[in-house]
Amino acid sequence: MILLYTDFGWCGPYVGLMHRVVAGRVPSVPVVDLMHDAPRFRPVEAGRLLAALLPGLPRRCIVVGVIDPGVGTERSALVCRRGEQWLIGPDNGLFAAALVGEDGARAWRLPVPGEASASFHGRDVFAPAAASLAVGRMPAGLRPVREWVGRGESRERDVAIYIDDFGNVMIGRNVAALTAGEAPRPGGRELPRARTFAECAPGAAFWYENSLGLVEIAVNQGDAARELGLAVGDPVPMRAELET
Amino acid sequence: MILLYTDFGWCGPYVGLMHRVVAGRVPSVPVVDLMHDAPRFRPVEAGRLLAALLPGLPRRCIVVGVIDPGVGTERSALVCRRGEQWLIGPDNGLFAAALVGEDGARAWRLPVPGEASASFHGRDVFAPAAASLAVGRMPAGLRPVREWVGRGESRERDVAIYIDDFGNVMIGRNVAALTAGEAPRPGGRELPRARTFAECAPGAAFWYENSLGLVEIAVNQGDAARELGLAVGDPVPMRAELET
Amino acid sequence: MILLYTDFGWCGPYVGLMHRVVAGRVPSVPVVDLMHDAPRFRPVEAGRLLAALLPGLPRRCIVVGVIDPGVGTERSALVCRRGEQWLIGPDNGLFAAALVGEDGARAWRLPVPGEASASFHGRDVFAPAAASLAVGRMPAGLRPVREWVGRGESRERDVAIYIDDFGNVMIGRNVAALTAGEAPRPGGRELPRARTFAECAPGAAFWYENSLGLVEIAVNQGDAARELGLAVGDPVPMRAELET
Repeated sequence: MILLYTDFGWCGPYVGLMHRVVAGRVPSVPVVDLMHDAPRFRPVEAGRLLAALLPGLPRRCIVVGVIDPGVGTERSALVCRRGEQWLIGPDNGLFAAALVGEDGARAWRLPVPGEASASFHGRDVFAPAAASLAVGRMPAGLRPVREWVGRGESRERDVAIYIDDFGNVMIGRNVAALTAGEAPRPGGRELPRARTFAECAPGAAFWYENSLGLVEIAVNQGDAARELGLAVGDPVPMRAELET
Repeated sequence: MILLYTDFGWCGPYVGLMHRVVAGRVPSVPVVDLMHDAPRFRPVEAGRLLAALLPGLPRRCIVVGVIDPGVGTERSALVCRRGEQWLIGPDNGLFAAALVGEDGARAWRLPVPGEASASFHGRDVFAPAAASLAVGRMPAGLRPVREWVGRGESRERDVAIYIDDFGNVMIGRNVAALTAGEAPRPGGRELPRARTFAECAPGAAFWYENSLGLVEIAVNQGDAARELGLAVGDPVPMRAELET
Repeated sequence: MILLYTDFGWCGPYVGLMHRVVAGRVPSVPVVDLMHDAPRFRPVEAGRLLAALLPGLPRRCIVVGVIDPGVGTERSALVCRRGEQWLIGPDNGLFAAALVGEDGARAWRLPVPGEASASFHGRDVFAPAAASLAVGRMPAGLRPVREWVGRGESRERDVAIYIDDFGNVMIGRNVAALTAGEAPRPGGRELPRARTFAECAPGAAFWYENSLGLVEIAVNQGDAARELGLAVGDPVPMRAELET
């Protein structure tokens, strides 16, 4: 299975042309649009969200990640492996969070052919590499590397990493990793914890463990990001100011 | 064929994760995104639209419907059958219109496993059940039921059930079911009937039989919902006030 | 491979119902959503964009194009062939640019069956024809024609043909076809040429050769259409006023 993870949005021919490349080469391989509204121009936040998504993806799969504001520059391209999950995309921090703490994670530099367009490596470089891997062939010209952008950065951070269409705000922190007394306090405000949306009155802000295992702030039938003034990248403290 | 019918919108990983579940279990079964902007949080209106869509779907198919504001509460989950069309989703009225008047319609309660997330039964409960049915296996633990939310409610009602991206307003009423003198009168206003958009001057409001067989109000190259002040759920009278 | 190219947007059941038709008839044929936000109600501009996309599509493929404001009127339906690429859709100028200068291009009138809905030929006429062609069967009732709407119009024109989700403005002109001194001058303004977005300061307008080979005007991490006041169909002069 190949999964596409980009910040292209659903407009324009960009997603379609990536499907066209894969379907033209390996038509029997399932291709899933994991999401196309990863945080735009923000490989670090998009990478934290990707790291949270990977445990829910197949044990063996290939993710093509394209959040790539530096396309066409000297930034290089990566193929990474974590267990039997492969990640293909720009070397700009996008895969750093996914690889942290993964013993046996490996990475290769993927060459960018001279005929690739300067603005669409998703179509010309990453999708062809994914089609190749999907039939068990390493892409041509891979060179092992031990360094990549963001290597060693912590996987989690208490920042907003994604705001969905409902206005729910995902924080880059697993609920399982919270320590005693930690809870999201956007702008210092205490929020009740809930298990489901339906537990809270419409219009009330709360936090809960979302379906990816992350801390998420929501307003039942409302827009938490707007109500709390949160944008992707904003820090969300997990402790009261006067603590520690 | 499995068809996905949700109110998730195209943002976020939600639709992608449902595809991931199905493709991971039954990769050769076609999965079609029927639509992902069913009326949000409104299972009743979404159900009337689904009932209008079903006659155009394959005689044998599986629809996963997720308009589910009560996810994670005590609301139960349903598998329903109407002819050889299967419907899977929450028991919140979503399937009531589809089952009205269908002799031989059957329904089963679908158990929610303890490990299902509290907020995403589409991924954890309904998509796995669909994958199972797609290869001819009844999901484990089904229990026949004779009651479901909304059972016996009329299939049609003169309300706006969907507003599309163009601003066209679908009414929950089949044109074939109109009686003499009935025609949509939003806010009491008479509208001309047309067969095609092109029959009407740009900017003119009219009504017509849409491609699902429903009464639909439109403005050629304009936005009927905005011009007529209509939202999903609004009643649209079919008779003049002084008639009976 | 069948590719869908429409102005439906991603809302509503329209795209899903086209997939349903194809998957119901030829489930093993890959279907790619090339794009669904082709310029709305503008077959001529949409056709110029399609002509720019075709060289990047498979040598053998079938494109279903539905930009069809005249659906249900006397406008007829076309099947066209250019090499081994097939185009199916309304005869309203949509395919004119794709066929210009293609020696050996052929076209047939596609009959519209009486039972087709008056508003959704994509589902009732064009998708079934594509499914038929995909398994090597010419649709029933084709009649060869030598004329079609827009036949002989120039393929390129210096107008905005598409504005993507980022606000980038595509011009209907191949960079390879520019002559000395030609460069886009929106509102008479000179713009620097760049190879990549990253070469330009955030907020700066520039032009470049996009990944389809077209002239495109962009603002790095900004919205060129808004900043320059450009909409689809607007002319963009390629020479300074006082030249020639």
